[in-house]
Amino acid sequence: MMENIKASIITIGDELLIGQVIDTNSAWMAQELNKIGVWVQRRVAVGDVWNDIWKALDDESNTSNVILITGGLGPTADDITKPLLCKYFGGRMVMHEETLAHVTYLFEHVFKRPMPLLESNRRQAEVPDVATVLKNEVGTAPIMLFERNDRIFVSMPGVPHEMKHAVEKHVLPLLKKRFQLPYIGHRTLITMGIGESFLAEKIKGFESSLPSYIKLAYLPNYGMIRLRLTAQGEKEIIENELNKTFTTLKEEVKDVIAVDEDITFEILLGRLLKEKSKTVSTAESCTGGYIAHLITSVAGSSDYFKGSVVSYDNSIKENILQVSNETLSTDGAVSEAIVKEMFTGVLQVMQTDYAVAVSGIMGPGGGSAEKPVGTVWIAVGNAENIETKKLHFRFERKRNIELTAINALHLLCLFIKKRS
Amino acid sequence: MMENIKASIITIGDELLIGQVIDTNSAWMAQELNKIGVWVQRRVAVGDVWNDIWKALDDESNTSNVILITGGLGPTADDITKPLLCKYFGGRMVMHEETLAHVTYLFEHVFKRPMPLLESNRRQAEVPDVATVLKNEVGTAPIMLFERNDRIFVSMPGVPHEMKHAVEKHVLPLLKKRFQLPYIGHRTLITMGIGESFLAEKIKGFESSLPSYIKLAYLPNYGMIRLRLTAQGEKEIIENELNKTFTTLKEEVKDVIAVDEDITFEILLGRLLKEKSKTVSTAESCTGGYIAHLITSVAGSSDYFKGSVVSYDNSIKENILQVSNETLSTDGAVSEAIVKEMFTGVLQVMQTDYAVAVSGIMGPGGGSAEKPVGTVWIAVGNAENIETKKLHFRFERKRNIELTAINALHLLCLFIKKRS
Repeated sequence: MMENIKASIITIGDELLIGQVIDTNSAWMAQELNKIGVWVQRRVAVGDVWNDIWKALDDESNTSNVILITGGLGPTADDITKPLLCKYFGGRMVMHEETLAHVTYLFEHVFKRPMPLLESNRRQAEVPDVATVLKNEVGTAPIMLFERNDRIFVSMPGVPHEMKHAVEKHVLPLLKKRFQLPYIGHRTLITMGIGESFLAEKIKGFESSLPSYIKLAYLPNYGMIRLRLTAQGEKEIIENELNKTFTTLKEEVKDVIAVDEDITFEILLGRLLKEKSKTVSTAESCTGGYIAHLITSVAGSSDYFKGSVVSYDNSIKENILQVSNETLSTDGAVSEAIVKEMFTGVLQVMQTDYAVAVSGIMGPGGGSAEKPVGTVWIAVGNAENIETKKLHFRFERKRNIELTAINALHLLCLFIKKRS
Repeated sequence: MMENIKASIITIGDELLIGQVIDTNSAWMAQELNKIGVWVQRRVAVGDVWNDIWKALDDESNTSNVILITGGLGPTADDITKPLLCKYFGGRMVMHEETLAHVTYLFEHVFKRPMPLLESNRRQAEVPDVATVLKNEVGTAPIMLFERNDRIFVSMPGVPHEMKHAVEKHVLPLLKKRFQLPYIGHRTLITMGIGESFLAEKIKGFESSLPSYIKLAYLPNYGMIRLRLTAQGEKEIIENELNKTFTTLKEEVKDVIAVDEDITFEILLGRLLKEKSKTVSTAESCTGGYIAHLITSVAGSSDYFKGSVVSYDNSIKENILQVSNETLSTDGAVSEAIVKEMFTGVLQVMQTDYAVAVSGIMGPGGGSAEKPVGTVWIAVGNAENIETKKLHFRFERKRNIELTAINALHLLCLFIKKRS
């Protein structure tokens, strides 16, 4: 019998409530839980406030089987999660010798601190005697498992890499062992260049004919829309049904589909280039190196990415990319002629098979009636062919930069696919 | 009489619970609310599930004065927030003519869609008759205000720039008008190069002597720790007390302080360069353009940033930055000698006053016994002086890149401050 297991994530810390940090942990945890068939039904953030944390534990354990708690485990006075959990589960604090040995080792051999352990460091090794300690191999705060009325509670540090370690090493194996989890299957494709309502209209027939156990979600982001089919049940049946339905969906959106899986364009680009053993470079004005950053965020990108010239100032366009001063005067830096020259220049100087060049006005300043903020020219191609495109974004600086980069990578992927 | 106003943020959408998107909205909203003296006590994320949203509205209005709701207002079938709010507040849906005119205008003149309005687009202009409509100038989904039992509920789109518009244009003015808000003052400084427990030990005396109305928070992030003093009450008294206490704190941590306000190093760098009318460029290997991206994420950076050479491949280091092939052979690409040559090369080719160069191994591959993953060399300086530093990070690729960039910017800021 498969069980329908629900989880809540409680994140603890004033820093989340005053907005000093962005919570990236919850999204990652939700993804990992989903993959093993656990549905996150609520995420709650509370401050370092005794009653608020207590109430959140009560509330979430009323509705969820699994309660994952992050944060509030640091060595300073504002961190109250551990004593609170001790009281909540009716235990008393004891020194956990194995953790103490681990903390001592970390300070001496990894952090290489010249000073002896502080009292606050020693206290990190104390745990409630009602907790099962799960070893935190990458940090000093112990991971703690509590159980009550068939509910599982795991408290872990909020530091992202320590939380990830706790989830991968302890939480996921524990849940898979403890519960008979259903299989959850996803199929995702990404469309570009169509608004959400028009896409919905386009596939209205498809959507209304979906069987009840397959759900369709629209996830718009940065001018793309992810369409995701989800189903849960027995693996073989689910996979078979999803494959058939996904084939139909791909056919329905074939003129707006960008990629038929849930990957970023920088990962797709890397895959295309590796397949062909080809190389790429970028010439960036308005994106200021962001396209190169996206490409190099992929491990192994040194196999196909040679480099970038960020030619923010026109003198750099002229000196390194050999853009002509005359074209700059006649057409301006944001023009088709200039991105073409930047493209040719970077292909030449970097000696790569493909290249992409961008120039635009990201705002808030620098716009004009003729070339308003958000105007962008993109050139992609190889030594034989070059394609250009003019785009116009209506957002603030950060979003304009991101949209320009994503569109440039998309165009480049299209070009490589087409010319193979 | 000042009021102690508490807020809850409810974010609605399955995409948050499956981890497909990271919630950046909540942090921004919390910051803005804090600035006007409204304390966010809880943040809750629920799916597009009728009962879960209903329960969240019940729960949060029990404890908070202000309930801000984002998401679930799109034109597709999975968006149920608007009909739910209509039912929750006992209204019925009516066409809001002003919104319809606005939606029509957007589709015709801004999105420039060739097709006529779809039924789903028209429905975006429908609102519960018990709502006060607040105009969404930047999108199609109306912002809606509801009131019940002295509680204020505002529903707004989850799209970040539309949410920001709603908060800045409508929510903040409304709250300031409606409540007698206390003044909340913050003072923040950033330390680098010291662990949280050692910092806490260092300022133990300071912390224990703090008056009860001033709170101190530790916010560790990326090898930096933000120390933030917070107090609320009457503006004049609070500001006066915070200034005195902050001066003491700065003195206590003077050997580890990086900057005495809550700004990023790229903003600090821009300010320093503008003050001196100087320029900067970057030569990046392992960071792949990320330093240039951070610098150019600041509006107005074209005043002082000329460009970057991302020399991922050694051939680019040689061809554009004039790094010697011999040094590459003898010392390797990740070495003090190479970052020095990269630094000299970029200063020469970009003709800037200052420059920064980095080379390192970000992982997961590429490490060796002698130069393990995480090894980084940084060079900063000007035509007269150059300073280098070797660092070693112990994290995964993304974090190693970010830490390298932050440290490089920090070193550059220190250099500029010191040599002025």
